[in-house]
Amino acid sequence: MADPDAHLSSTLDVGGALIDRAAVVGCGVIGAAWVARMRLRGVDVRVFDPELNVGVVLDEVMQQAVVAWNGLGLSTDRLGSLMVCESVADAVTDAELVQECVPERLDVKHATLATIEAAIPRAALVASSTSGFKPTDLAVHMEHPDRLIVGHPFNPVYLLPLVEVVGGERTSLGTIDRAMAAYASLGMKPLHVRVEIDAFIADRLLEAVWREAIWLVNDGVATTAEIDDAIRYGFGLRWAQMGLFETYRTAGGAGGMRHFLRQFGPALEWPWTKLTDTPSWTDKLVGTIADQSDDQSGDRTIAELLAERDQNLVAILKALEAVDAGAGKTLAQLRATQR
Amino acid sequence: MADPDAHLSSTLDVGGALIDRAAVVGCGVIGAAWVARMRLRGVDVRVFDPELNVGVVLDEVMQQAVVAWNGLGLSTDRLGSLMVCESVADAVTDAELVQECVPERLDVKHATLATIEAAIPRAALVASSTSGFKPTDLAVHMEHPDRLIVGHPFNPVYLLPLVEVVGGERTSLGTIDRAMAAYASLGMKPLHVRVEIDAFIADRLLEAVWREAIWLVNDGVATTAEIDDAIRYGFGLRWAQMGLFETYRTAGGAGGMRHFLRQFGPALEWPWTKLTDTPSWTDKLVGTIADQSDDQSGDRTIAELLAERDQNLVAILKALEAVDAGAGKTLAQLRATQR
Repeated sequence: MADPDAHLSSTLDVGGALIDRAAVVGCGVIGAAWVARMRLRGVDVRVFDPELNVGVVLDEVMQQAVVAWNGLGLSTDRLGSLMVCESVADAVTDAELVQECVPERLDVKHATLATIEAAIPRAALVASSTSGFKPTDLAVHMEHPDRLIVGHPFNPVYLLPLVEVVGGERTSLGTIDRAMAAYASLGMKPLHVRVEIDAFIADRLLEAVWREAIWLVNDGVATTAEIDDAIRYGFGLRWAQMGLFETYRTAGGAGGMRHFLRQFGPALEWPWTKLTDTPSWTDKLVGTIADQSDDQSGDRTIAELLAERDQNLVAILKALEAVDAGAGKTLAQLRATQR
Repeated sequence: MADPDAHLSSTLDVGGALIDRAAVVGCGVIGAAWVARMRLRGVDVRVFDPELNVGVVLDEVMQQAVVAWNGLGLSTDRLGSLMVCESVADAVTDAELVQECVPERLDVKHATLATIEAAIPRAALVASSTSGFKPTDLAVHMEHPDRLIVGHPFNPVYLLPLVEVVGGERTSLGTIDRAMAAYASLGMKPLHVRVEIDAFIADRLLEAVWREAIWLVNDGVATTAEIDDAIRYGFGLRWAQMGLFETYRTAGGAGGMRHFLRQFGPALEWPWTKLTDTPSWTDKLVGTIADQSDDQSGDRTIAELLAERDQNLVAILKALEAVDAGAGKTLAQLRATQR
């Protein structure tokens, strides 16, 4: 695969993004964080959300993003403009990229995409932030499905570089290329998911962990705090920089991956996990998890937790940049093209 | 739960570990890394391994560990001694803690534990590094099973703080307490796994991800490199500092965990994942994974990958220490009690 970061240096006007005007439709946590990243890269953004408090959410997330980018040592002086619009049509009419971030219901997505499509220029890219639906299923009623992709980001969108780019059966290759380049120019790491499956790559892995974790809580094996500690004092540190396979490759010693697989593979047959079903999603289980989560967080508010999370991510990203590894490389590219 | 780190400051002679003499039986990658961590904390260690090249492995891993600890700014001047012994009995005869690290076969573990038990002082702690077997099953033939625990570490043991401490049905509470204190004094984060299950906590989560990842490769959805990127540019960064539940708590916004669960919970019912079985572990699949892993690593040797991994982990741990978060807190405690 070509290095998607290559777009940054080869095609970019140094000092900003490939696109000048974007629209974000749906401004919850994810939508607002897209807005923040885009504006921080100098893109003018128009938004639409039916909620009355959309301005409050946008302000809060923008403030978090500015603190984070200042923490990274990135300039936040030349923001793209923001316009909150009264309708989807007003928001998207002039956009080069429309990022759809409405709730995860296929009927809602379809209706929103129809409204978007009726108002955009023919050349506009349409990207859905869905974490689950296939682009082919999203585009089923579209007049020009060639311009639809999934562009699935990870929270906090203004800090985490990954965005999964997925095309549907009728998405054009040109659309994929343009989306990869546009996201790279926003300082992200676009990953082209070549085969269209529900939940793509990252969320399939996340869902596997989530399901097993819920079992552990359901069966009283561990609390939410203990499970989080098992992650962040152990393999979570490995995964911030090397992922699953390359870490295991090193565990095989000089024998490498083949040696590791011969040792480890058979253990997959052991009946260790509860992966074959899900616990009943009862009020009792929801209550147990929520109560344990309350205990775990103590009297720290969500705002304090968000600030803590961002501070930690900023520290990790800068540390990885200093050793030229993983997500630190993406940050270095972004820094090189900041105004 | 009491904070296991409390042991460090409350009961420790500042400048070293709670134990003076340890034995490590079985010196592969994990055993050798235990030796390194123990010696770096001033513990005299005797080892036994039937392999002729045990000295080479010990030297290599010790060198890696010294580089890593120097990177952390920790002194490596006053190492505990190392003695490579001719028999298990010679290695363990005088030990306060015996760390068993032989291959993951129950019959081999049983035979090794019998040999260890015949030669140790009555008061010695016996810990197995197993990542899967329950301590009750390990102790089934032991004369004094009260002193056996599982102490399951994470590679690289000299850098990652997590160690899962699991007692069996006949393990004494005193043994658990002593083990928690001993591991904390080695600069680790002991996590008491209160309910005895196969694979404990972390490896159940890891196995869930591994299984799903193998399906993705098997079905040609993604390569090993793409899966690693999906982790290390995205949620891996979150997990290095906050774990699963607290991250999701923040995603619920002001509504917190209850709000998040109401939104996300039902999605667990969707048939997204391949979690219900394992792909056939064919030579073809092993070959595919190994070949992709070879491509991914390019011409970097295992030694180079290990150096890269450790350099990245050192950078992340120092970054987390600077913001007083997660594994950085454990490092700060360790630093405070270094000679």
